[in-house]
Amino acid sequence: MANFEIIERIDVEMPNVRYPVVIQNSGLHCSGFLRQHINTDKVMIVSNDKVKPLYLNQLVKSLNPVRCDWVILPDGEQHKSQDSLNSIYDALVRNNHHRDTVVIALGGGVIGDMAGFAASTYQRGVGLIHIPTTLLAQIDSSVGGKTGINHACGKNLIGTFYQPGAVLVDVGTLSTLPVREFRAGIAEMIKYALLEGGEFCDEVEQSLRQGLTHESPQLPSLISQCIKIKAKIVAHDEKEQGNRALLNLGHTFAHALETYTQYQQWLHGEAVAIGLYCAAILSWKMGIAESSLPLKVKELLELAQLPVRIPSAIDSQRLMQLMKLDKKILNNRLRFVVIKKPGHCYLENKVAERCLHDTLITAVEGE
Amino acid sequence: MANFEIIERIDVEMPNVRYPVVIQNSGLHCSGFLRQHINTDKVMIVSNDKVKPLYLNQLVKSLNPVRCDWVILPDGEQHKSQDSLNSIYDALVRNNHHRDTVVIALGGGVIGDMAGFAASTYQRGVGLIHIPTTLLAQIDSSVGGKTGINHACGKNLIGTFYQPGAVLVDVGTLSTLPVREFRAGIAEMIKYALLEGGEFCDEVEQSLRQGLTHESPQLPSLISQCIKIKAKIVAHDEKEQGNRALLNLGHTFAHALETYTQYQQWLHGEAVAIGLYCAAILSWKMGIAESSLPLKVKELLELAQLPVRIPSAIDSQRLMQLMKLDKKILNNRLRFVVIKKPGHCYLENKVAERCLHDTLITAVEGE
Repeated sequence: MANFEIIERIDVEMPNVRYPVVIQNSGLHCSGFLRQHINTDKVMIVSNDKVKPLYLNQLVKSLNPVRCDWVILPDGEQHKSQDSLNSIYDALVRNNHHRDTVVIALGGGVIGDMAGFAASTYQRGVGLIHIPTTLLAQIDSSVGGKTGINHACGKNLIGTFYQPGAVLVDVGTLSTLPVREFRAGIAEMIKYALLEGGEFCDEVEQSLRQGLTHESPQLPSLISQCIKIKAKIVAHDEKEQGNRALLNLGHTFAHALETYTQYQQWLHGEAVAIGLYCAAILSWKMGIAESSLPLKVKELLELAQLPVRIPSAIDSQRLMQLMKLDKKILNNRLRFVVIKKPGHCYLENKVAERCLHDTLITAVEGE
Repeated sequence: MANFEIIERIDVEMPNVRYPVVIQNSGLHCSGFLRQHINTDKVMIVSNDKVKPLYLNQLVKSLNPVRCDWVILPDGEQHKSQDSLNSIYDALVRNNHHRDTVVIALGGGVIGDMAGFAASTYQRGVGLIHIPTTLLAQIDSSVGGKTGINHACGKNLIGTFYQPGAVLVDVGTLSTLPVREFRAGIAEMIKYALLEGGEFCDEVEQSLRQGLTHESPQLPSLISQCIKIKAKIVAHDEKEQGNRALLNLGHTFAHALETYTQYQQWLHGEAVAIGLYCAAILSWKMGIAESSLPLKVKELLELAQLPVRIPSAIDSQRLMQLMKLDKKILNNRLRFVVIKKPGHCYLENKVAERCLHDTLITAVEGE
């Protein structure tokens, strides 16, 4: 076990709330560090059956003498459901948790979204601390306060904006992350690279060429930079009324693909990878980007060994139908984040149906 | 049908949001008035099977050409459940409602709480307009942004704080309110009288002696005054971290009684009536109030023909157990709003179990 070390502290500053994202190594083993941020008598830890054997005991031990209750949910996006949410509520009620309790999300994005939603709605809101254990949750989903569950008809259709008290990113937990999950996280990192462009984009590309793993010395710095990009955007637009929507680059496609396959085929980050490629093609087809952009995006994704193409078994018409439940819709118009070039993305609300269809056809395997 | 007339406009002013409560007569018939506050292309009206035949058609007609969808739920507190909430979500999804939709709560407190919760969580928050049609909803539940559903283990355990865009109080709708429902609303009015004391308390008492009905000329003024008291309190404490808890006078008892009887025996206001009497007895037993206080409270409630005593079939021990899920609990201690005298109430966190037990015994019928 590595010694405890604080790598960086990033403050997310919103008009009415401010909280720290503390990037560190081995924080789960450091009682003093945890108790500094989790200042209560009683917590409800929400985790899943994959993470529990790895970190639950350690967390409970480090939090001693705080009374820890926990609820362990099945792993996977298909379990981000009303049933899982009810399990959290029931555990809170059964163990007499009151408004002064703190919910701790110990796991990836699915756990964070559900635990966050439960915390925001139990007794009209209780404390929330994120301890993300996947790359995707560390660089993306644990920051910014989006919570939610899936509805049978669409992803994240039920949720809230609810900021945590703190996000404790222990990069040491990435050592136990399956490589497929690690790669899924890289998809969101590539998203940030495309949004930010410039040096950061070059740095991500270079790291991918070198073969980025959880042991790469530059990983903590890449994580910090992603969180800073996100913190800056959400600080100015907590409720996604403007620029925050840019963080959804590739996600309109990704959410429809996930809903289509009932969350069985891809991890969220894998669907985002395909979505990023689709966004690049769309931007090119609309004449916004050069033809080199989709090739560049494809190359980055392939360096990370992420899926890029839409399987030919997927019906484009049905996929388009599923996109019509996207949360960015305004005045009945789908809006897409498009890429002019890395570092220059924007929300486009005039996307012709034919152009979209053409994009999907082009993205399909074997075309 | 009476002519449209604006009686009063009260602005609820919170640090980040401000919205009007417009008390008027016949507003449901006034297209111009409604369109001024409901400025959208598409709405989802949430109502129940009692209110629908009375006001749904009129509302849809007045909102024309706004596209109106609706979902009609069964009436009653026992239906303030996850199932009903899911019906609202399903209606929103099925009818392709997006983030720019507006949910309209047309009905009493149960409809307002559920529609508000759905609006606060559908796509992480959409617009919300309250059109309360019961006295209780007009003077109490529609103002202040509390939303929620019941959990099998306790009332309003799942919910949010979510402020509406406007509350449109058409006092004309009280003409169709069953007398039992009207009386239930008076219980909350008596609560405000006890909180406020002074002239307002005298005015309520005098009105009750004269026999307050939906036709009483002073009713609109009493409604306005209740809303002003509530608006003042919630403006300073949106999330109930301080004085807002005073609005729960009698409610710790009431919620336990409602949960005990599975919402079958009393309307919420009726349970509040018994709760107010219990709060008065508790205040006296603790030596905070004179012995005349419970008699005075009992008299006011009986003037409104409200229930006052706990039925002897109710087991005090189990009732006390149910109180232990109260949302005001802090550091594992139940906190009660106590009454020193009308106009002087406060939150007391040192209530001996024996004193509470003694209170319940005294409040039981036949004692």
